[in-house]
Amino acid sequence: MINISFPDGAVRQYEPGVSSLDIAKSISEGLARKVLAAEVNGEVWDATRPITSDASLKLLTWDDKDGKSTFWHSSAHLMAEAVESLYPGVKFWVGPAVENGFYYDMDLGGNQIGEEDLKQLEEKMKELAKQNNAYSRKKISKPEAVSYFKEKGDEYKLDLLQNLEDGSITFYTQGSFTDLCRGPHIPATGFIKAIKLTNIAGAYWKGDEKNKMLTRLYGVTFPNQKELDEYLLMLEEAKKRDHRKLGKELGIYTMDDDVGQGLIMWMPNGTVIIEELEKLAKETEDDAGYKRVVTPHIAKESMYLTSGHLPYYADSMYPPMELEGEKYYLKSMNCPHHHKIFAAEPKSYRNLPYRIAEYGTVYRYEQSGELFGLMRVRCLHMNDAHIYCTKEQFGDEFRAVNEMYLKYFKLFGVDKYVMRLSLHSKEKLGIKYVNEPELWEETEKMVRDVLIESNIPFVEVQDEAAFYGPKIDVQIYSVIGREFTLATNQVDFSQGRSFKLEFTNKDNQPETPLIIHRAPLGTHERFIGFLLEHYAGKFPVWLSPVQVKILPISDKFMEYVVEVKNKLRKSGVRVEIDERSEKIGKKIREAELSRVPYMLVIGEKEMTENKLSVRRQGKGDMGALDVSEFINMITEEIRERKAAE
Amino acid sequence: MINISFPDGAVRQYEPGVSSLDIAKSISEGLARKVLAAEVNGEVWDATRPITSDASLKLLTWDDKDGKSTFWHSSAHLMAEAVESLYPGVKFWVGPAVENGFYYDMDLGGNQIGEEDLKQLEEKMKELAKQNNAYSRKKISKPEAVSYFKEKGDEYKLDLLQNLEDGSITFYTQGSFTDLCRGPHIPATGFIKAIKLTNIAGAYWKGDEKNKMLTRLYGVTFPNQKELDEYLLMLEEAKKRDHRKLGKELGIYTMDDDVGQGLIMWMPNGTVIIEELEKLAKETEDDAGYKRVVTPHIAKESMYLTSGHLPYYADSMYPPMELEGEKYYLKSMNCPHHHKIFAAEPKSYRNLPYRIAEYGTVYRYEQSGELFGLMRVRCLHMNDAHIYCTKEQFGDEFRAVNEMYLKYFKLFGVDKYVMRLSLHSKEKLGIKYVNEPELWEETEKMVRDVLIESNIPFVEVQDEAAFYGPKIDVQIYSVIGREFTLATNQVDFSQGRSFKLEFTNKDNQPETPLIIHRAPLGTHERFIGFLLEHYAGKFPVWLSPVQVKILPISDKFMEYVVEVKNKLRKSGVRVEIDERSEKIGKKIREAELSRVPYMLVIGEKEMTENKLSVRRQGKGDMGALDVSEFINMITEEIRERKAAE
Repeated sequence: MINISFPDGAVRQYEPGVSSLDIAKSISEGLARKVLAAEVNGEVWDATRPITSDASLKLLTWDDKDGKSTFWHSSAHLMAEAVESLYPGVKFWVGPAVENGFYYDMDLGGNQIGEEDLKQLEEKMKELAKQNNAYSRKKISKPEAVSYFKEKGDEYKLDLLQNLEDGSITFYTQGSFTDLCRGPHIPATGFIKAIKLTNIAGAYWKGDEKNKMLTRLYGVTFPNQKELDEYLLMLEEAKKRDHRKLGKELGIYTMDDDVGQGLIMWMPNGTVIIEELEKLAKETEDDAGYKRVVTPHIAKESMYLTSGHLPYYADSMYPPMELEGEKYYLKSMNCPHHHKIFAAEPKSYRNLPYRIAEYGTVYRYEQSGELFGLMRVRCLHMNDAHIYCTKEQFGDEFRAVNEMYLKYFKLFGVDKYVMRLSLHSKEKLGIKYVNEPELWEETEKMVRDVLIESNIPFVEVQDEAAFYGPKIDVQIYSVIGREFTLATNQVDFSQGRSFKLEFTNKDNQPETPLIIHRAPLGTHERFIGFLLEHYAGKFPVWLSPVQVKILPISDKFMEYVVEVKNKLRKSGVRVEIDERSEKIGKKIREAELSRVPYMLVIGEKEMTENKLSVRRQGKGDMGALDVSEFINMITEEIRERKAAE
Repeated sequence: MINISFPDGAVRQYEPGVSSLDIAKSISEGLARKVLAAEVNGEVWDATRPITSDASLKLLTWDDKDGKSTFWHSSAHLMAEAVESLYPGVKFWVGPAVENGFYYDMDLGGNQIGEEDLKQLEEKMKELAKQNNAYSRKKISKPEAVSYFKEKGDEYKLDLLQNLEDGSITFYTQGSFTDLCRGPHIPATGFIKAIKLTNIAGAYWKGDEKNKMLTRLYGVTFPNQKELDEYLLMLEEAKKRDHRKLGKELGIYTMDDDVGQGLIMWMPNGTVIIEELEKLAKETEDDAGYKRVVTPHIAKESMYLTSGHLPYYADSMYPPMELEGEKYYLKSMNCPHHHKIFAAEPKSYRNLPYRIAEYGTVYRYEQSGELFGLMRVRCLHMNDAHIYCTKEQFGDEFRAVNEMYLKYFKLFGVDKYVMRLSLHSKEKLGIKYVNEPELWEETEKMVRDVLIESNIPFVEVQDEAAFYGPKIDVQIYSVIGREFTLATNQVDFSQGRSFKLEFTNKDNQPETPLIIHRAPLGTHERFIGFLLEHYAGKFPVWLSPVQVKILPISDKFMEYVVEVKNKLRKSGVRVEIDERSEKIGKKIREAELSRVPYMLVIGEKEMTENKLSVRRQGKGDMGALDVSEFINMITEEIRERKAAE
């Protein structure tokens, strides 16, 4: 018998050779129907693969990231089987799972696949899925594998084989389709219930434009039709709410080739949002005892050698500028500058926790192919802060930061979020992570304990920590269900020592502080991108670039109109007048389109009665209000940062 | 007869060979006694030099920058004469006028001059000054000049002579001292009435540490004793108000070798001042119809080739970063990014004037030897803005900017300021200035007209314009009389065309806007340096990093103390508690030293009576006040940005 240990700590005994699927069945048939793959000793395996010795086991379903990606990778094989049956002679390159689905690159020979052929392919896939063919794994020697693909005349797989070592090669077969593949795969094609092929594109072999152009076929699959329907609906909604489209329409941001890719310029309307967000952060942090600082965007190489950004983070940094024999780097993080501010004046335990915040701008290199709207950029603005504290203070400080996140999420109507506790990887100590095994263990435990004590649901992921310590990544979901990785809350036991930061403790001894790195709203770039989608451009009043648009029915009422405008401005309301001599209907339509929350129509009647005809964007007429009534209403809405209803 | 034209436009006739001094005498003896030099056809000459043909003439006195520097340069010769008479065999290198006085570098051979010798040297100088010896100019051939210094055995002057062309060489003699010198000089030593030698330092010959160390002797002189006394008093006061000393004491800013020279890091107290200044600017600009933007700190080479920063401003820029085959530069000005924002959406005359402001950070290269505290830095923060307008709108817009300056000066208690209209130089068109002679004339006239119409006193200076147009530089004086070059208001007729900026005019035709560049508070670095000196660190309440310090007499009153603190915080007051268990006397002394404007002493009596004992920094006890009374008083003081009394 072998011992299988489960995530909850339970250990059960099974016959050697038992598969994860067998184990699932031994628990419940319902569970077995959901098992897509399994994590065995930290490695993702086929659920059908025999386990021969003691092991830790985690069953993976659709709810697990690795379960999903196994499902999609198996779907790529299913798609390949369908293509091969309809287009004999096709040769395949690689077919991975991606963020939302999968693709396969293929050489169709003389054939071509167009949009109009996708339906037929989907039907073929459904037919093959219904056959519920098992995905079977087979170890194969390199010479055998080579001779198989030589016979098939498949130069692509032969190319892949060149880089594989004999003894590590596996084939997977389902139905009539066999592929060179490391796996893992789901148990059988029958798990795949809903199929949508989404796109056809060209892709150079190995990404090199000197090579042949292959056909890349994209698809997405689900374990039931309902999820596919929801996904397609979400896609359609996301298209309408596309932050790039709305960002342009609403004058939020722009980019320019002469400035450079991924370098956002915030237009006046976007800047209003940035400033409101920063004002919110400043108020929140002021209440929480933070102080503010301003630091330059560059520093000398020596600082980044001390911090460890060089070499650990070098790939994400801009190249240096050489001046007077020194190398200067654009900062990719604010922390080293903040450490210098901590160190500028001597500190005692009385000064801790020392919390300093900055509206910081950092520069990170992302490959130009990775850049995307506000989501992947090279210049990042963020409400950043660092907290220097004692070990005793750590729990309270870390908890307070987590709570600040939750407070923000509530304010922005983020109902769904996941906290990911990102841990180090032992194998990468000294390469990707500072080589301090005990401190890693200790601080990871501290963070985990805070999360458990605060009753915050979280998942743990290996090998995603910062190089200086464990962190919490927060993923939030927009109202239409799209996921955004947003904020981080990080522990740092390393930089305090590297920078020789010290405070005098109660025993009058020097001691190194722990450091918390936090940016609860993430970058303003990504957060505003999120908000554009989340609100579909209809910002709550406090965030709206223009809060009120006054629409005079004619020039005759301008004196009253200007009087109303001035009263609103004095109350701190952002107000504009549509002075054009257009018909009132057109003015209303355009104001509605520009998502101004309140429109005030002013004509003869309003002027005589000293009133306003108030319209709410998307809701229509609210009737006539006194000027002071309206001002009270809107200023309260702004002051309390009320959500759009 | 020759025609001499004066700055007021008058033209008078004189005999050829007349000197400026003769002309001054012909106007009044009083004037003649004040004439130190003269600008003849734009060149500074000895007042005694004969004028032989028609010329424009400006007599230079102590009130003119060039008058002053001639005076100081002549004083350097006087000092050299005194040194030579006391230390025979001394050899001289160069002796220029500097910002406040003059120096002369010399090789004293076997001798040494110490602090204790300065008195004797000053006496000698006074003696020589009283002789009222004329400074006489003599043209001399190069061979003659060489043989003169060969005979004297002076290798330094021989070295200087190497680079001079025959025909352009002059000697100046006063009393027994003769020097190789281009001049000009004041008429005679008698003009120098008050003398102070201020410093002795070492200086490598030609600034190269491989060369011999020379002795550099610094001095300053005045046309009367009163001015010297005032100057010495000002120096003493300036020492107490030194922004570097106060900046450290008050936790305003810090610098660090690992970050880099000239790169200021703003500590929490300095950041409060920055944010208050920017809040003021934002409110002021909001009322004046500006919108705000945020742009990145880098851009591609192509943008700076378009703007003309490359090549015209290249020396002041950081070197490029090379990324993916492109060169990226740190921005040294915000204008090109703003032009891109202007261009991002089509504009019509209805959108003009289009005013966009940014709290911008720019990077400029200054040689490390030039860096000085907050005054000369490499990273500059500024409230910057650009106004795009039609020619018709230009006058009003430019005037409004000037008026904004005056409003700020009033708020900060700046009573003395000078506006300098900086013009181009015809000779440097196409080198230092864009080559558009007519547009230079036209825009210079527009700016001059605005200044004259607004009755703002100004001086005109040649060859100090921006490369894209004329500008006004504003110099302000701190309460102790030191001069700071602060703000600029610039016209730009060039970049609009380079960036192909357009608006549709009333005739539906494309037209290029004029651009005004303005930054009324200059850089925050220099302005806060100025304010530290101006206020001697005793900021008005609205600018004070900590506005109120509560000083409990004992722990027993903490509940009431915290209640008072919370009330103040709710009213937006920046308040701290001195929680230490120190004697109240010590707490008061330290709070006074930290320049907190209000101290609230709280003990038994205050708590029982629900009052506060209020102290004003530097003024002492203000008696007991109700909490609400005090809150009303201080919040009004903050809201109205009242000056410190």
